[in-house]
Amino acid sequence: MITTIGFDADDTLWHNETIFAATHGRLCELLSHYHDAAQVDATLNATEHRNLARYGYGIKSFTLSAIETAIELSAGQISADEIRGIIELAHEMLDHPVEMLEGVPETVATLAAHGAYRLLVITKGDLHDQSRKYALSALDPHFADFEVVTEKDPATYRRLLARHRIAPDEFLMVGNSIKSDILPVLDVGAHAAHVPYHLTWVLDRTERVPEGPRFHPLRSMGDLPDLLAQLNK
Amino acid sequence: MITTIGFDADDTLWHNETIFAATHGRLCELLSHYHDAAQVDATLNATEHRNLARYGYGIKSFTLSAIETAIELSAGQISADEIRGIIELAHEMLDHPVEMLEGVPETVATLAAHGAYRLLVITKGDLHDQSRKYALSALDPHFADFEVVTEKDPATYRRLLARHRIAPDEFLMVGNSIKSDILPVLDVGAHAAHVPYHLTWVLDRTERVPEGPRFHPLRSMGDLPDLLAQLNK
Repeated sequence: MITTIGFDADDTLWHNETIFAATHGRLCELLSHYHDAAQVDATLNATEHRNLARYGYGIKSFTLSAIETAIELSAGQISADEIRGIIELAHEMLDHPVEMLEGVPETVATLAAHGAYRLLVITKGDLHDQSRKYALSALDPHFADFEVVTEKDPATYRRLLARHRIAPDEFLMVGNSIKSDILPVLDVGAHAAHVPYHLTWVLDRTERVPEGPRFHPLRSMGDLPDLLAQLNK
Repeated sequence: MITTIGFDADDTLWHNETIFAATHGRLCELLSHYHDAAQVDATLNATEHRNLARYGYGIKSFTLSAIETAIELSAGQISADEIRGIIELAHEMLDHPVEMLEGVPETVATLAAHGAYRLLVITKGDLHDQSRKYALSALDPHFADFEVVTEKDPATYRRLLARHRIAPDEFLMVGNSIKSDILPVLDVGAHAAHVPYHLTWVLDRTERVPEGPRFHPLRSMGDLPDLLAQLNK
C-alpha cells in the first residue's frame, strides 16, 4: 500500500538538462577559437567530475568548472571579457524561467486531490536554485514537504524515510534518473517509477539495470495514477 | 518548558567568518596593483549584495562575486592566471578544516546526555559545504536533525517548527547573528539565546535590537546549560 510519493524535480517535474546542454553549446562557441567543440565538452566534463566532491551539484559549481576549463583550454590566454561572458551565461541559467514537463501540473494536482497520498519533492542540487525553481513551479500547495539533498544514495533515502516516518514498502519514488531516483530507492526496499527524459547528464549515467517487482517503468508522468491504482488495489 | 534547542552553525558551532575575512585580505593583496584594499573590499561587498538574491550564500557565490569584482576593478585587465588564483583561494576555503568554537563540543555533549532536549542544527548557506562541515564536526551523534535553509526569516522558522512538531514557546534558538538567529525567532514566539562572535559579516548586520523576556544574551556557549536549568525550573 503506497502512502507517500517522492518526486524528483530536475527533468521529472521541470526541464533542466536542456538548459545545461544549451549552455554547453554556447560555451563551446565561446571557446571555438581555442579548441573544437568535442574537446571543450570532454574537458568540461572531466573538470566537473574532478570538482564534484568539492563543489557539489548546481549552476554555480558548473560555472566555476567552466571558468577553470576555459583558462586551461586557452593556456591562460582567455581574456577577462570572455570570462565575464561565462558568468553572464551563468546568470541567464540562474534567471531562466521554470518550464514544467508535459502533464506534470495536472498529474500532481490529481494525486494531491485524491487525498490518499502524501507528496514530497526530493531533489539533489543547489539549495538556493532548487528553492527558486520550486517557488516558481507553483506546485507547493500540492506537496507536504520539499527536500534538497547533497546526494541521492541509499543512506539519504533511509534518512528521509526515517524523518518522515515512512515504511520503505509504503514509499514510491518517481524520477528520470536510474542512478539517483531508481537504484538507491530499490536498494532500501521501496518502490521506484522511472519516467524517462530525453537527455541524461554524463555524470548521472549508470551501467546498472534496475529490476524486480518494485521497479515500475512508465512512458510518461500521465501513467502514474494508473500505476498507483494498480499497486493499491 | 524548553524541549528543543536549535543551534546555528557558522560562528556558533565552528569558525567561519575568520576564514572569509582572511580570504578577503588575500584578495585585496592579489588586486593591490589595481586598487587599494578599502576599494576592493567595498566593491566586493557591493557585488556580493547585488548577487545575493541570484546566488544565495556560501563560498561558491562569494567566489563568483570575487571574480566579477576583479574583472570590474581591473577594467578587464586582470589575467587568466590571476583569476585562477581566485579559484585556488576558493578551493582552500572549501577544503579548510573545521575548527570548533571553544566549549562547543563539551556543551553539546552535555545537553545531549541530559536526555530532556532534542537538539537540531539550523544553518543557512550552501547545502554541500555545510553538510561537509557538519560531517567533519563529528557532532552528528548528538543531534536529532540537521537543517540547511536558504534564508533565516520568520517564515522559515515557522516551517521548521511545523515540520518538527514543536510549539514556539518550547523552542530555544542559539546563535551569534542577531539578524538571523535572534530577531526572526523572537518574532515567531520562540526563545533565542545570543552567543556573540567577534566578527559579523557586513551583510548579516542589523540595526534592530532584540528585547523581551524570551531574549537571552549569553557571554559564551558554556553559559547555555545554566540558562536552560533556569528556564525549565
